[in-house]
Parts: sequence; C-alpha cells; structure tokens
Amino acid sequence: MNQVRALVFDVFGTVVDWRSGVARAIAPFLVAHGRTDLDAFALADAWRRQYQPAMEEVRSGRRPFTRLDVLHRENLEKVMVAQGINAAAQDLDALNLAWHALDPWPDVLLGLHRLRRRFFLAPLSNGNILLLANMAKRAGIPWDAILGAEPARAYKPQPEAYLNTADILGMRPDEVCLVAAHNGDLRAARKAGLATAFIPRVTEHGTGQTIDLTAEDPWDCVADDFIELARRLGC
Amino acid sequence: MNQVRALVFDVFGTVVDWRSGVARAIAPFLVAHGRTDLDAFALADAWRRQYQPAMEEVRSGRRPFTRLDVLHRENLEKVMVAQGINAAAQDLDALNLAWHALDPWPDVLLGLHRLRRRFFLAPLSNGNILLLANMAKRAGIPWDAILGAEPARAYKPQPEAYLNTADILGMRPDEVCLVAAHNGDLRAARKAGLATAFIPRVTEHGTGQTIDLTAEDPWDCVADDFIELARRLGC
Repeated sequence: MNQVRALVFDVFGTVVDWRSGVARAIAPFLVAHGRTDLDAFALADAWRRQYQPAMEEVRSGRRPFTRLDVLHRENLEKVMVAQGINAAAQDLDALNLAWHALDPWPDVLLGLHRLRRRFFLAPLSNGNILLLANMAKRAGIPWDAILGAEPARAYKPQPEAYLNTADILGMRPDEVCLVAAHNGDLRAARKAGLATAFIPRVTEHGTGQTIDLTAEDPWDCVADDFIELARRLGC
Repeated sequence: MNQVRALVFDVFGTVVDWRSGVARAIAPFLVAHGRTDLDAFALADAWRRQYQPAMEEVRSGRRPFTRLDVLHRENLEKVMVAQGINAAAQDLDALNLAWHALDPWPDVLLGLHRLRRRFFLAPLSNGNILLLANMAKRAGIPWDAILGAEPARAYKPQPEAYLNTADILGMRPDEVCLVAAHNGDLRAARKAGLATAFIPRVTEHGTGQTIDLTAEDPWDCVADDFIELARRLGC
C-alpha cells in the first residue's frame, strides 16, 4: 500500500446502506398507492436484482453507455408493473431519487475525514455523477472528485472502469486502491492492477446475508470499517 | 434566474488568479535554470497564449479529446524552448502542476459557501478533473462535483461543453447558470440556453487589462464578486 496516493470507493453497500434507504423511500410510496400488503425491503431487493442485468446490456455493447439514473428508472417501472402498480410517471421519477439520498454507514464520515488528509478520495461507483454528488451533498461525504462509471464511460467490473479512473487521476493503477465490501469488485480491480482493500458490510443484504461476509482473497488491506482503515493507513 | 438550480463556474480568471499563481511557480524555476533575466509574468502570459490554439486542435477535430494537463505540458515545453531553456522533463512536469495550485480571488470561498446552501455548485472549466480537484482540495473550494471539459468531452466555447454539462446534471439548460468573468464564454453559454452571470475580474491579465472590464451584454445577473452574487441570489 506504500505507493498508493488515491483511494477510490465502491459506494452501494460499501459507503452507503442502499437497502434500508431504498426501502425507507418505498414505504410511503406503497401507502400512497394503497399497497401496504407489500414489503418495502422485498421491493428494494427486487429493484436491485434488475441492476446487473441492466448494466450488462451496456457492458455487452448491445446498448450505448447509459447512466444509472436512466437504468434505475426503467428497472423501477418493471418492478412496479410486476406488482400491478400503475404509478404516475412523476411519482416514479420522485421514487427514483431514493438512490440520491442514501445514508452512509456510521463509520464512513469520520473515516473519510481522516483519510482525506493523506489521500485523494473519490467514489468509483457504477452510480452516475449527479446521483453520487447529490448523495455526498446531503450526507456531507468529503469526496475530492466524483469519479466512477460515468466519467470512465464503462461499468464495473469491466477493466476500463478501473483503468480509465486511474488515467483521469494521472496515476499508475498501483497508485490507486479500491476500497470495497465485495470480493468480486476487488478481484476485477486487482486484475486491472489496482491495490485492494476489503471492508465487510455483513448486513448490506439484511440480517440473513450469506455473501461477502469475509475477505476471500489476500487483499492488500482488510479492516473492520473506515475508521480502522484510516488507522491502518496512518491517518 | 428563478428556475436556476445549479451554478457552474468558469475557473481560470473567474474563480482563481491564474496569472499570479503561474508566475509564482515560474520564478523559482527561472532561478534554478539561471535565467533571472526573464520576467515570470511575461512567461505566464506566453504559456497562456498557447492555450486557445492547443484547444482549437481538439475543437476542430484534428486531434481527439486530450485533457488540459497534456496540452499545458506540451505548451510549456514550447515556451521554454523558445527562450532557449532546455529543462529536464521532471522539472517541466513539476512546473506544469502550477495550474493545480492556483489561489482563489479573496471573495470566492465565502461566496461559494453561501451559494452552496441553495445551489448545486460545480466548475465548468476547460481544466481537467484532476487539475480542478487538486486545486479545490488545496484551497478548500466547496464544489459539489467536478464537471467541465473532461466529463463533457468538449472544450468551451463549443455548445457540447455546456449542453453535456446540463445533461450530466439532469437539468434543462435554463436550470443551469454559467458564472464567468468573460463575455465570450457567457455568449456561448446563452446560445446553448444557459442562464448567465457576469463577475468582473479586472486584473486577471494584470493592471493594464483592456478586455472584459464590464458586462457587454444584458446578462441575467451582474455582480461585483461572489459575495455580492450570493446576496443577490438570496443566499
């Protein structure tokens, strides 16, 4: 890790608790549409299940690069139609902004403020610039720049997502470290030459989570949370 | 201005005093190369004179999009060779970073901190993401995201620079206001449909400045500095 000058972060799951935040926004939507028989967490999970297939259309080249706000909006409509909810476009537009207003895990702000003194900090998320910037503005996340799929024009885990981000930073890939709660993301980053740090988020998918509970490979750094990461990196 | 939700800013000249900052970095370089016969401000001006021609190669399509750090580095070499200075590549690399370490005008930080409460704030500069982010990190400029030529993949005053920025922001062009000290930049922004605000910076080019001393068109807002801009926009 000695040569690392920038830390770039996976966001959904690693920095913010997307599942609770999305469910919190879905709950009043269900009340407004008279569907309190449905579970908001189950719908958040259903919405999220459409995430990878939608990006795969772009990764495969079947669709030109399309920012995540657009994919989220299409996916939301599918999920609601499948439940027989025929909501007005403006209500779906509003609910789509749930992804802009997610809360960080409790260790994130203190950890990032400490890390920021020594490192250049940016998200490397599949979220688009506006989504990540609105989230940061609302929660006070101290990014130095908003990077990720949109400026890189590629969705993780494609190598271009990692390599174009290092290029924008004017750094060699090994000067950039990806921090993530997902072993698969870290595997792709390592393959592209980045340094890797794993932080477990064992309730990202709820209390019954079975994946990404521990580091599955010898990552360059493993820490319990962002505060311990800061401590281990001398910040 | 009532519909405006984002303020985007020209940076070189409008937010930061590039001429003093670049001259400040050139001065010790001249000492180190035994050329104290040369004037650091004159060299800063000479370096800046290469700026538009270098971008014009990209705007014309003769060259693919190339970020400003690369153009600045090439231009610096030309300027130094013209003076008979044969500097080491690493010394030119270091001097090129002068553009990452420019100081804001004295009203900027207070004005932006006030404007930030009500508006989404971002640079809309021809500077690249890393340059603008390093500048902001050093000076404490509170941008919500780093926008501009690199994410828009177009150099001002091409319409795509303004329109792609509005698109990234998920806003109509008239919901975005360009703040600039340059009438030409504002003319191009207005043509693209953006709102416009003029702030004079009458010593950008030194005490003998003859251009952009006043607003030349009826811009949507004209203010003496960023603090007055904040006051006029109710922040």
